[in-house]
Amino acid sequence: MLRPASIRFAPAIALVTLFGLGEVGAQTQTSIDPAGSAAVIDDIVTGSRVLADFGVLDGFGHVSARDPNNPNHFLMSRSLAPALVTAGDIMEFDLDGNAVDARGRALFLERFIHAEIYKARPDVMAVVHTHSPNVIPFTISQVPLRAVFHNAAFLAAGAPVWDIRKDFGETDMLVRNPAIGRSLAETLGDKSVVLMRGHGDVAVGPAVRMAVFRAYYTDVNARLQSQAVGLGGLLNFLTPGEGAKADAVNFAVLDRIWNLWKMRVTTTLAK
Amino acid sequence: MLRPASIRFAPAIALVTLFGLGEVGAQTQTSIDPAGSAAVIDDIVTGSRVLADFGVLDGFGHVSARDPNNPNHFLMSRSLAPALVTAGDIMEFDLDGNAVDARGRALFLERFIHAEIYKARPDVMAVVHTHSPNVIPFTISQVPLRAVFHNAAFLAAGAPVWDIRKDFGETDMLVRNPAIGRSLAETLGDKSVVLMRGHGDVAVGPAVRMAVFRAYYTDVNARLQSQAVGLGGLLNFLTPGEGAKADAVNFAVLDRIWNLWKMRVTTTLAK
Amino acid sequence: MLRPASIRFAPAIALVTLFGLGEVGAQTQTSIDPAGSAAVIDDIVTGSRVLADFGVLDGFGHVSARDPNNPNHFLMSRSLAPALVTAGDIMEFDLDGNAVDARGRALFLERFIHAEIYKARPDVMAVVHTHSPNVIPFTISQVPLRAVFHNAAFLAAGAPVWDIRKDFGETDMLVRNPAIGRSLAETLGDKSVVLMRGHGDVAVGPAVRMAVFRAYYTDVNARLQSQAVGLGGLLNFLTPGEGAKADAVNFAVLDRIWNLWKMRVTTTLAK
Amino acid sequence: MLRPASIRFAPAIALVTLFGLGEVGAQTQTSIDPAGSAAVIDDIVTGSRVLADFGVLDGFGHVSARDPNNPNHFLMSRSLAPALVTAGDIMEFDLDGNAVDARGRALFLERFIHAEIYKARPDVMAVVHTHSPNVIPFTISQVPLRAVFHNAAFLAAGAPVWDIRKDFGETDMLVRNPAIGRSLAETLGDKSVVLMRGHGDVAVGPAVRMAVFRAYYTDVNARLQSQAVGLGGLLNFLTPGEGAKADAVNFAVLDRIWNLWKMRVTTTLAK
Repeated sequence: MLRPASIRFAPAIALVTLFGLGEVGAQTQTSIDPAGSAAVIDDIVTGSRVLADFGVLDGFGHVSARDPNNPNHFLMSRSLAPALVTAGDIMEFDLDGNAVDARGRALFLERFIHAEIYKARPDVMAVVHTHSPNVIPFTISQVPLRAVFHNAAFLAAGAPVWDIRKDFGETDMLVRNPAIGRSLAETLGDKSVVLMRGHGDVAVGPAVRMAVFRAYYTDVNARLQSQAVGLGGLLNFLTPGEGAKADAVNFAVLDRIWNLWKMRVTTTLAK
Repeated sequence: MLRPASIRFAPAIALVTLFGLGEVGAQTQTSIDPAGSAAVIDDIVTGSRVLADFGVLDGFGHVSARDPNNPNHFLMSRSLAPALVTAGDIMEFDLDGNAVDARGRALFLERFIHAEIYKARPDVMAVVHTHSPNVIPFTISQVPLRAVFHNAAFLAAGAPVWDIRKDFGETDMLVRNPAIGRSLAETLGDKSVVLMRGHGDVAVGPAVRMAVFRAYYTDVNARLQSQAVGLGGLLNFLTPGEGAKADAVNFAVLDRIWNLWKMRVTTTLAK
Repeated sequence: MLRPASIRFAPAIALVTLFGLGEVGAQTQTSIDPAGSAAVIDDIVTGSRVLADFGVLDGFGHVSARDPNNPNHFLMSRSLAPALVTAGDIMEFDLDGNAVDARGRALFLERFIHAEIYKARPDVMAVVHTHSPNVIPFTISQVPLRAVFHNAAFLAAGAPVWDIRKDFGETDMLVRNPAIGRSLAETLGDKSVVLMRGHGDVAVGPAVRMAVFRAYYTDVNARLQSQAVGLGGLLNFLTPGEGAKADAVNFAVLDRIWNLWKMRVTTTLAK
Repeated sequence: MLRPASIRFAPAIALVTLFGLGEVGAQTQTSIDPAGSAAVIDDIVTGSRVLADFGVLDGFGHVSARDPNNPNHFLMSRSLAPALVTAGDIMEFDLDGNAVDARGRALFLERFIHAEIYKARPDVMAVVHTHSPNVIPFTISQVPLRAVFHNAAFLAAGAPVWDIRKDFGETDMLVRNPAIGRSLAETLGDKSVVLMRGHGDVAVGPAVRMAVFRAYYTDVNARLQSQAVGLGGLLNFLTPGEGAKADAVNFAVLDRIWNLWKMRVTTTLAK
């Protein structure tokens, strides 16, 4: 029996079996859940909860994915704490940040982070924005974030710091329009992570799982680098060459940790 | 059916559905729960438990609100660990710190923190006093606490340190009378947060939710600033202009994180 | 109906209602549970679990109390991880560290810490030995542990560091005989806390609850002092005069936090 | 009744009573569970979960044991997150890292860490490889990891840092063949722990429980040493003589903390 999308999941902390999402999605044909996007939506939900569980996301921040059926659209939750996001909260946006079918739902002010990065980077299939607590000190420091260990290999190519004040003066710090989003996307360049001064960071990747993995290990790496700096003396970071090779391996073994993470947030849900 | 206030909640860790408090309160007419104050009492209870859950409050500290029905009174728990506060524990006080209807209940020694701030600051509707662990190092340091990121934007206006020894010599460190409370309120001035040397801090706001939000993000900001200082070199803090703008946005999106927090402490209660 | 002490509690993680212990004890007349000592035994059990819950104790360390019925004896668990201690595990020892009624049970090697302090300090009614993680760095450092905030007021009188190597050369670091215990007790002197180089610390007090309180806040204070030192510059510690006054208040309000802690470990047990 | 090995344990988070494993194993005769190895397999499963529970292991890393029935073989899980390892996942390998009976199961790329250490060190009965977060900063620092306290006594003999780049140039950082494993084993020498630059560490021991104990306390010691270094000034580490004596005691009291750990992960499983 088909149930309408709006009641498929209870709105709050529901006893959802995330694992069944793919099959359920394959049986429905709605604008927010076309064949093929259900797996991506499942990854957005899982990734949001995983990062909330780790404290990388608190009540703010968001995970999005390029729509697998339409590269000029992306999928992202309505305005909601990431720990509470369910498949039914995911909306569709065009690359100017307009909701395709808003139906009165509240939107994230900072959806332009996502829109402008998808516009500028055709290779990017997923974007994660966080107020990652261990990373924020690096956003106000002159010490660059560098790759301490192989799980954060993607940082070996560099992680630039973007300062909103440079182009936009004294603001409320938010990426609240396309122009600010474009400026951020330009600073990101071809990298995997960009730091936002006094705010947080953005991690991107070729899939939701990889963007979530990078958001998580950016936070871990920042914590380890802070500890290493505290020891004093010279530090022996990964070289760009090592980073490129190790990042390819991370992508290959990614599902081992993703399955663990998914099991954890699903178990939490079911308790 | 009306139940007397004293048995509305079990005295200890009760299976309270906090969400229903507003309606229940609206049906009762007692001196501690007049129409209109139930929502504020609910926020005091929720805020106390949220801050205890985060470790910002341990067994000590307190959350209060100006009485919405009488600006010359405020509402605050009887002497009790914040994690255990329920609506039935909230008492009413005048601005000299006298309990309106004590009925033999033990009072917090430091209620004068609250009384004197409400007296000095008509704009303040809520006060939170904590022994916030990440903030305490700044209370004994010459390094001022400054706004590291936009969620702690309210710190960009400055967070002065009050030293009880300056006016009162060697004491037991407690704000145990109106004169000491007045001295603290004077150092707070028009700011949102005041640090107390060798003791903790006080956060104020235009609503309980905002004072709790500020108490929480003062702790987070202190932790991040400590990490940033450890990296060495110059740091790029929020300007006062950025702080004022970002604080207004925080107030606007506050309910997104408040609802998450409330759900968490309610779920914990119901387990 | 009287049950023998050995089966009063299940040996492992049992669904014990700690609150009922006093009454149960009052009904039994055995050498390990004379009338009057049941409340003290309950505090040893609760304190062991509280400190384990906070990570101040891990699998090692111990909480003891002077026997309220015999000042020349003390009460302490058989050799067991503190998180698992129940009332049935508490044994009685004389001040030379001999078990009064061993019945083949394994003893803590380091019971001489307790025996020698009870011998040297008639005012001490309880002793806690931990490998408190935040304190251990101070045991190998030249930076003295000092009172950062009023909850750790007892540190304002000083917390000396004892180095076993000074009198005993290269050992296995353990206080495994009366002579080593005496050396430790001498360094403790009239203070509340003594640090043990490369090992941990000992906190004492006029009651189990106060010794546990001090063990906990010694750990918290060490963490906060480490953070404060990291900020750089001069630090403004509590004076001895402030410390003495604030410590008296801590003793007066101790039960507020003790009741919270006890409820927590009891709830954990009952889950 | 005998059940085939493949269904003895549910594949995911199962309600396994780890304590019964020995008896079950004694009744079966399969190539992965010969009489005598069941207790070792139980320790591998318990140790994997304990280290995952402490965050010493995340989704990666592994625990192995020399086969008690064949010193030229070792036992290790198929490729799986350590938190999910059950007895049914343990496979048998020869000292070249070949699986004795692969049956299509995915293997850990880095099994050569284990194979080459068992080859080089006949005294080693267990090997643990982690990305221990507190240790990683020391792998890129010039500050050597040293024994801060007696539970980490095994570090007093030294913990060398191995840099894969020295012999193998820019790699993906993984120990993916016997030659790299041999290089690592050579740097380990006769020590208990070797650090891997930009990667993690390896702890070895005369039994699984001791290798797990050392992996855990290497992480704790690294955290405490980082804090101690942050205090500034000279530090008073354990001497090699103290380390040797204290390590012998640790081995003697090991089961006290092992039983606590095992109870914890078993309780978690059964929830």
